[in-house]
Amino acid sequence: MPPPAVLVVGSVAFDSIETPFGARREVVGGAATYFSLAASYFARVSVVAAVGEDFGPSQMAVLRRRDIDVRGLAVLPGPTFRWSGRYSYDLNSRETLDTRLGVLERFDPKIPEEARESAFLFLGNIDPDLQRSVLSQVRGPRLVGCDTMNFWIEGKLESLKKTLAGVDLLVINDSEARELAKEPNLVKAAGIIRALGPKILIVKRGEFGAAAFGAASPFAVPALLLDEVVDPTGAGDSFAGGLVGYLASQCGDGAIDDNLMRRAIAMGSVMASFTVQSFGVEGLLDLSRQQIDERYAQFLALSRLEGG
Amino acid sequence: MPPPAVLVVGSVAFDSIETPFGARREVVGGAATYFSLAASYFARVSVVAAVGEDFGPSQMAVLRRRDIDVRGLAVLPGPTFRWSGRYSYDLNSRETLDTRLGVLERFDPKIPEEARESAFLFLGNIDPDLQRSVLSQVRGPRLVGCDTMNFWIEGKLESLKKTLAGVDLLVINDSEARELAKEPNLVKAAGIIRALGPKILIVKRGEFGAAAFGAASPFAVPALLLDEVVDPTGAGDSFAGGLVGYLASQCGDGAIDDNLMRRAIAMGSVMASFTVQSFGVEGLLDLSRQQIDERYAQFLALSRLEGG
Repeated sequence: MPPPAVLVVGSVAFDSIETPFGARREVVGGAATYFSLAASYFARVSVVAAVGEDFGPSQMAVLRRRDIDVRGLAVLPGPTFRWSGRYSYDLNSRETLDTRLGVLERFDPKIPEEARESAFLFLGNIDPDLQRSVLSQVRGPRLVGCDTMNFWIEGKLESLKKTLAGVDLLVINDSEARELAKEPNLVKAAGIIRALGPKILIVKRGEFGAAAFGAASPFAVPALLLDEVVDPTGAGDSFAGGLVGYLASQCGDGAIDDNLMRRAIAMGSVMASFTVQSFGVEGLLDLSRQQIDERYAQFLALSRLEGG
Repeated sequence: MPPPAVLVVGSVAFDSIETPFGARREVVGGAATYFSLAASYFARVSVVAAVGEDFGPSQMAVLRRRDIDVRGLAVLPGPTFRWSGRYSYDLNSRETLDTRLGVLERFDPKIPEEARESAFLFLGNIDPDLQRSVLSQVRGPRLVGCDTMNFWIEGKLESLKKTLAGVDLLVINDSEARELAKEPNLVKAAGIIRALGPKILIVKRGEFGAAAFGAASPFAVPALLLDEVVDPTGAGDSFAGGLVGYLASQCGDGAIDDNLMRRAIAMGSVMASFTVQSFGVEGLLDLSRQQIDERYAQFLALSRLEGG
């Protein structure tokens, strides 16, 4: 069996979510889950994460259903990481009600032998020390993607910078990019961040889309305009999963050129759009290739613009 | 002489602006000024507004320099409308320090005879009663555009709805669209607003670009990514001026189709980008056609996306 194409390391969790449109309690969530499910439509995916003994067969089935390789899921004594949050009436802000790290406190990622040759590695939003431990276990991936958050930018900046030196593609939020660079102008912030290592910076802007800064000219896309959004949880992780999964499926042995990167960002946006239209991961479980292609065509139509 | 192609009614003001990058005191501003200057690169423009006796030849020269027809500028006894404000460190929010209506309190727009046949009318952000008074004075314009703000949405909603019944194109901010429709979802809000009259709703999203809802499929564009932004004042008004001016220059006697509307929105974004790179109206005074075309090409490159 060839090694899995995409390897993601991150959190698998139980989420409890309240939005103005409903609520879900203790459903399978976590950044690595959203990432894996979105990427699974394009590539073989392996996930490395820690779960507790309360993560049973019915939870595991969520990942298995999409044929995700779960041999790297370490089952540790204690409870699985739990997050609960509540969204505002317009879904544009959320309040974290509770966070219980559980087994995440002892997470020390071990990459299974068969996943160490993965061509595409994504370092989810975990301690930058652990991100580097993962980097040291893999053998020459073609592309290393990375996420992080304000918690690590504020608390472990020096370690994060060491990690970024080994990263090709950083995928973070708008406010995180400005905070990491200590620079409010996004274009200038991108220059500062790219000098730390990542050749490509992709900035997630929520309902406003995404921007990308790389070797070629900057790129920006709006997000799909949806008349039904019920739960934004996991949108950014689904974006990253769709993006990296699509890259893995399309780039063959060649380089990632500007056009491919743009299409991958569009596909990330498509996968995020499915996520926000249902609660939790529900929108990512049963998509057909046709649904994805139709949504991609809708995305092209949304932003199509011809010369003057 | 043929009637001017674009007629705008709105505010002409003295602005005092503080941003982290500098300050200007008592410079010529106001929504109708930004609109007129931006539109003047594409069409003949007439402006109807009230100014005070303190609005002298050097202020008038700002408009005359771009050949804007100022015969509709009523000089009333008393001071010109004054606004002063201060922007936050990242330019994303601003505090109004002072507003003095001055002659605006007695503004009763009179459209000069020669401007009553203008093909394109833009009703700037003034009392909706006055907007309707202007509408009653013009003779069958091909397109009526309109702006408004939360002040009128909250204080004069019934009058505003009467105005909107006679409007083709409404150009407002994201938060204003949601407030006007009493609906947090933008797509649903657009449907509600379009049912009030405007066939086309264009939603301004600041540094995140714009979205448009019309007969055809929705359209969204990012804003240009600029490495130097010094003063956002007037960006939205310049956007509307570039948009309407371009429409006037391009649509001939034909209908405004979806492609033309998209290019006009791009041109609005281009004109807004010049505005924010300098203080006040300074960025709109001396542009060449080549600069505008180059920026437009940059805009196409920014959002160019081909099929998968």
